[in-house]
Amino acid sequence: MNEVIQNILTRRSVRSFKEEQISDENLNILLEVAKYAPSGMGRQGWHFTVVQNKDKMEKLISIIKEQMLNSSEERFKKMGGNPDFNPFYNAPTVIITAYDKTAATIEADCAVALENIFLAAHSLHISSCWIHILAYFGNDPKVRSVLTEFGVPEDYVVSGSAVLGYNNNPLPDAAPRKEGIVNIVK
Amino acid sequence: MNEVIQNILTRRSVRSFKEEQISDENLNILLEVAKYAPSGMGRQGWHFTVVQNKDKMEKLISIIKEQMLNSSEERFKKMGGNPDFNPFYNAPTVIITAYDKTAATIEADCAVALENIFLAAHSLHISSCWIHILAYFGNDPKVRSVLTEFGVPEDYVVSGSAVLGYNNNPLPDAAPRKEGIVNIVK
Repeated sequence: MNEVIQNILTRRSVRSFKEEQISDENLNILLEVAKYAPSGMGRQGWHFTVVQNKDKMEKLISIIKEQMLNSSEERFKKMGGNPDFNPFYNAPTVIITAYDKTAATIEADCAVALENIFLAAHSLHISSCWIHILAYFGNDPKVRSVLTEFGVPEDYVVSGSAVLGYNNNPLPDAAPRKEGIVNIVK
Repeated sequence: MNEVIQNILTRRSVRSFKEEQISDENLNILLEVAKYAPSGMGRQGWHFTVVQNKDKMEKLISIIKEQMLNSSEERFKKMGGNPDFNPFYNAPTVIITAYDKTAATIEADCAVALENIFLAAHSLHISSCWIHILAYFGNDPKVRSVLTEFGVPEDYVVSGSAVLGYNNNPLPDAAPRKEGIVNIVK
């Protein structure tokens, strides 16, 4: 098994991070691999906003939680009202994707760009988790105004995000993989 | 630069394939890495249908092209009417993803599973291309009935697909990457 395959199979989602920040050098590598993801018709209609400032991160978290608390969905309401809940799991770096809505397939394109980030991060011993909360609340006007302030282009749709940092605990085991999900027509 | 990052940066989309089939051993590795992609809430609501039978592949291609010809979109009509057009670029293997529509985020999950396939394939010197045509025509009743015959679960939504094989020509250079698509908040 080569390193690439080994790296895919051993990547895990991590939800507890140390305070230690990732280096600028590593951040630049992660942004570079994101740009090398495939995209529909080669449109590259994505945008990446990196948040590493603690105060600004807290501002964003607090506005997201306020909107969660106002949600009609019980699970969001519960998380929004929990003082210990942090949608970014206290990770020191968050990368937020957004996409040009005129390009077809681009939500999927943002997802594969994130997967490149997760895989390259793992190869650099940086842990990560895919966070979907902004796909639900990122286009809410109050959250959106903070994101616009952070540089997310105004006419772009906010999509998934990656949290990145060093894990507090050993990497968890993989959840069992679902069986019976492949059919081969020979 | 480690092998994982090198592999991400050197992967290319390929649109011309040799007849030579990939080995079952390699196919199994590609399906295994797909299952190790992250998925929203760990739902793994994906399904993979592999088509390697030439006659069945041709049947699928012919029905897709018939529907393209009936499309109201000029670009699809033109491709559907072109006798040389093959939506799978004559690749000997196609992997079609479909997803359980009750699971949120799952279209993105199928996309990241495909990215794992593309990256692992490249590490095994197998070329690939992400094909979106089934995201447009895969749920059309005529195309769908062929896919159901191939084993795509009836209540699943057809999503993107991967074509796989050995490239006929040297790997192309990467298209220039878009600039001005990153903002860092320190």
